[in-house]
Amino acid sequence: MVDLVVFGSVALDSIKTPFGSAEKTLGGSGTYASVAASFFAKPGIVSAVGSDFPTEEMDFLKKKGIDLAGLELLPGKTFYWKGEYGMDINVAKTLDVQFNVLKDFKPRLPEAYRKAGFLLLANNDPEDQLSVLGQMEKRPTLVIADTMNYYIEHKRDKVLEVVKKADICLMNDGEARMLFNTPSLVKAAKEILKLDSKLAIIKKGEHGALLTTEQGSFVAPAYPLEDVVDPTGCGDCFAGALMGFLASQGKVNEDLMRKAIIYGSTVASFNAEGMGMERLKTLTKKEINERFNEFKDMVRF
Amino acid sequence: MVDLVVFGSVALDSIKTPFGSAEKTLGGSGTYASVAASFFAKPGIVSAVGSDFPTEEMDFLKKKGIDLAGLELLPGKTFYWKGEYGMDINVAKTLDVQFNVLKDFKPRLPEAYRKAGFLLLANNDPEDQLSVLGQMEKRPTLVIADTMNYYIEHKRDKVLEVVKKADICLMNDGEARMLFNTPSLVKAAKEILKLDSKLAIIKKGEHGALLTTEQGSFVAPAYPLEDVVDPTGCGDCFAGALMGFLASQGKVNEDLMRKAIIYGSTVASFNAEGMGMERLKTLTKKEINERFNEFKDMVRF
Repeated sequence: MVDLVVFGSVALDSIKTPFGSAEKTLGGSGTYASVAASFFAKPGIVSAVGSDFPTEEMDFLKKKGIDLAGLELLPGKTFYWKGEYGMDINVAKTLDVQFNVLKDFKPRLPEAYRKAGFLLLANNDPEDQLSVLGQMEKRPTLVIADTMNYYIEHKRDKVLEVVKKADICLMNDGEARMLFNTPSLVKAAKEILKLDSKLAIIKKGEHGALLTTEQGSFVAPAYPLEDVVDPTGCGDCFAGALMGFLASQGKVNEDLMRKAIIYGSTVASFNAEGMGMERLKTLTKKEINERFNEFKDMVRF
Repeated sequence: MVDLVVFGSVALDSIKTPFGSAEKTLGGSGTYASVAASFFAKPGIVSAVGSDFPTEEMDFLKKKGIDLAGLELLPGKTFYWKGEYGMDINVAKTLDVQFNVLKDFKPRLPEAYRKAGFLLLANNDPEDQLSVLGQMEKRPTLVIADTMNYYIEHKRDKVLEVVKKADICLMNDGEARMLFNTPSLVKAAKEILKLDSKLAIIKKGEHGALLTTEQGSFVAPAYPLEDVVDPTGCGDCFAGALMGFLASQGKVNEDLMRKAIIYGSTVASFNAEGMGMERLKTLTKKEINERFNEFKDMVRF
């Protein structure tokens, strides 16, 4: 039995930033989100890898307690992404993408996943996100979907359908402004609420996150890091830790959501401290809780 | 006797934003800062106006309890600024500047100002800021200086001298990155601390402000406004309300500074709701306190 289903990519990434580089290192939205969630609850991942996927990475995922029944091993190569960051560390330049085994992959949920109470639809084609949601036996307690520029431009209607069907759609500020055609994040958040969402969460990268409900706003800071070594996967860590924490509580309310957002920011900030998933591999629950408490002092007045 | 001396411009502004326009309306860094401070303490302003300065605006400043002994009436015209904002409401395009009576103005502090415990050096030539500081009879309890791109580019050494001599130098994120040549705000803040400052405050516009001390950071959110009607003077309101609150307390410590930053954000957010100083003219202390309390709920987790 898994607490949380994560639908997202498992990848091998080649990354270059002003502070380092890594070749064919473990990556992918589903991987980052699952590992981040694993500090709080038991996630199961839905994706596929090829025969080149390293055994030690598979062992690492197992060691984190991630259920791998939904991770198919297919003939061919693992999804590959090559990217570079310049001095504006927030913007990735994609140098190469090879979909490989994910090219024609259609997600199929193992029996044991279909009753899970929490579902995270990480960055993916919105049609596949809707397919996964349709495979759940009953409506999960919470469905969160992530999206990205590409699909807002090319499949706007399907993205809006995902926004409507999910409880919460995670967007960054640029995506929210683009989807609702407004420079005002507060207006964009109100448009999200109109689409039958109880909550809107807009990620603001190094500026934190904004949670908006009918009652008001929660403005979560980001952890002020001296250096961002590699931001790859930070958005997925945010979503994964947020969902993992809520799954561990088994319910959702505004107070828990505020805490979940801070846990999301906490794990994302650790992830940014190392290349690829390097920092997540040594991260402990104790470190997470210490930084969570630092956040409390950071906003006190 | 004044609680707080404000050295900054008094101007007439012509402003156009996507949401409205105003012609020759009351403006200037000293005016915004003094009016914002007047909700908390008695400021005295050091500047000059010309014979075209409207009587009703002078009456408004008097009504706010601002001491005008330091505001010289000189032959000629009042400082004039004409600017426009596009859809990126954070960036002003200057269309015209006429220095007029401020062209050769050398600040001279009235006797009664020289003993004040609080000094705000708003945006100005750093040499004039140093001159004003030199005219104080004894070192004030707190000296805060504001700066801007132009002087960082053209008088970097003098700006660094101001940073050293003032207790706190207010910069926005772009200015801090430019002055210390780093993309990292946390690094820039640490450079400021090295220059003999106990505190560094970096303004992040719509993303709030960052306070850094040797002990840690305070991350203050900005109030999430649905529409920014006109951002002119928001940075000056932030500085003025912050200083006014501290002057009303007569002392400075980290806890008071955190509150002062939230009061600064509060008054700045009201100012952004109207063209020019329109909103400040009707603003009440009760409204300020209500929004200050809203901030408490906005960061709770």
